[in-house]
Amino acid sequence: MAVPEAPMPDAPPAPEDFALLAPLRVRWAECDPQGIVFNPRYFEYFDVAVTEHSRAIGFPYPEGLHAFGTDLFTVHASADWRASARFDDALAVGCRAAALGRTSPRYALCVFRGERPLVSGTLVYVNARLSDRAPAPLPEPFVEKLVAFERIPPTRK
Amino acid sequence: MAVPEAPMPDAPPAPEDFALLAPLRVRWAECDPQGIVFNPRYFEYFDVAVTEHSRAIGFPYPEGLHAFGTDLFTVHASADWRASARFDDALAVGCRAAALGRTSPRYALCVFRGERPLVSGTLVYVNARLSDRAPAPLPEPFVEKLVAFERIPPTRK
Amino acid sequence: MAVPEAPMPDAPPAPEDFALLAPLRVRWAECDPQGIVFNPRYFEYFDVAVTEHSRAIGFPYPEGLHAFGTDLFTVHASADWRASARFDDALAVGCRAAALGRTSPRYALCVFRGERPLVSGTLVYVNARLSDRAPAPLPEPFVEKLVAFERIPPTRK
Amino acid sequence: MAVPEAPMPDAPPAPEDFALLAPLRVRWAECDPQGIVFNPRYFEYFDVAVTEHSRAIGFPYPEGLHAFGTDLFTVHASADWRASARFDDALAVGCRAAALGRTSPRYALCVFRGERPLVSGTLVYVNARLSDRAPAPLPEPFVEKLVAFERIPPTRK
Repeated sequence: MAVPEAPMPDAPPAPEDFALLAPLRVRWAECDPQGIVFNPRYFEYFDVAVTEHSRAIGFPYPEGLHAFGTDLFTVHASADWRASARFDDALAVGCRAAALGRTSPRYALCVFRGERPLVSGTLVYVNARLSDRAPAPLPEPFVEKLVAFERIPPTRK
Repeated sequence: MAVPEAPMPDAPPAPEDFALLAPLRVRWAECDPQGIVFNPRYFEYFDVAVTEHSRAIGFPYPEGLHAFGTDLFTVHASADWRASARFDDALAVGCRAAALGRTSPRYALCVFRGERPLVSGTLVYVNARLSDRAPAPLPEPFVEKLVAFERIPPTRK
Repeated sequence: MAVPEAPMPDAPPAPEDFALLAPLRVRWAECDPQGIVFNPRYFEYFDVAVTEHSRAIGFPYPEGLHAFGTDLFTVHASADWRASARFDDALAVGCRAAALGRTSPRYALCVFRGERPLVSGTLVYVNARLSDRAPAPLPEPFVEKLVAFERIPPTRK
Repeated sequence: MAVPEAPMPDAPPAPEDFALLAPLRVRWAECDPQGIVFNPRYFEYFDVAVTEHSRAIGFPYPEGLHAFGTDLFTVHASADWRASARFDDALAVGCRAAALGRTSPRYALCVFRGERPLVSGTLVYVNARLSDRAPAPLPEPFVEKLVAFERIPPTRK
């Protein structure tokens, strides 16, 4: 749905931008009385895709980072809707690491129905020590695997 | 939790910025194995606050807008975390109309524990006709009630 | 909604059966495309009521039992629908300890809209050690507080 | 987890009892601070399995019944836990029509991890007219397809 006052700043993502596309089917539990997926549920879809992305790069969540004494905590999440998903839709959720800070990865996400992007979004995490939740550098093997995996190289800071 | 690479762009909101503060208590269902509220759940909290805000201005959702043949559809949602809420925390969710486009209201939100802002966010909706979901101007009475209600006047476009 | 083939076995509960009634308002997130609360959500309501019941008897969850090195794990849950709740309904969820086994409390629950029982249910937990999840006797102070609190004495096994 | 006072009444189901097994992977969103799937979430899993069962018999939900002017409404739900599912577990949810009343189907469900039954349950619906929600006989084609599909014949009332 277009928002005349707030046009999308970015070109829409395409499925081929993503080395990882997590398939899922919309559940009844996720739909609201408008007959569409309720907006917070897309952030659950994004989370599923980040989990599958972690598995795909060989750093399964959460044990991959736990082995380094750290975990990821969400610090930013956003989503922009172009269209809505509906009950029983077969979707694919693209996830890629778009930017890597010293302690903080940023993921770009997009929910597709076929080739059509419905909802794009961003998740930013900070990597933090399990002991005291102080920010910690991303482990080098994690960064290397991310970089090797992506089709579009993540920006580095 | 601080994110050195991605500092908060805005000064943190304070409870007194909001004419509407919706109280709620964190449910077990909303907490994850990290022992904190799972990030998509904050968008459910935001939604609860928008519902209470609609009631408070005298335009209860959804019948207030249905009377004009329209409904609101989410086109943007974002959240920034400063800290996490935990099980059984007593929270207050502030909601105010921060900007009004011709067809599109933008709400500023913040989850507080006491005076402390935990998570701030934004929700942008487009008002659309129930018949065909085409964007429709915000009804004048809705705009007037929003403007009269807020402590910080919404910007107009 | 009546089910001719499966009549309710029990007389419907009344609000005055419950020393604890937890108020809540139906959220949009909890409603489905039928326009009613989605059935698994009533089990979340039941859980909220058990939490409030634990607080009311002076044994707040989970720290009340953690002090004894135990926690409760669900072993049975059931619900019977007489009618549906809808978006924005103001509900009260009654919760009482209906039966006490050596290691296992059984709670009777009911969701009311005003005086009208909508959904009644049962939750059975087993108290288990945090260390190895082996069943453990309910702490005596917990049992005493439960028994002192209820209007209808729980049956004992 | 055993409940000494409340032994399981029935022999545990086996995967081969079910002509329909819906695969799913446990999401982070579904796990709670105990590190296990939160109990109401199993009812969401059951619902997913009923949806897949409806598709498998050739009567996809909800349009299969809508074509007859009816829909299913939940009147009873129950679950019994033998063990818990954990984050990222690969599960299969068995669903079969266990009993057919004139207006009301009863489904038997079980969540398996491999061959191991974790949580078994029951869902009873009433078929009701969309126009006024009065109970309506199950359409004959629906009953025939259910009966033809199952390995264990549903009991008839």
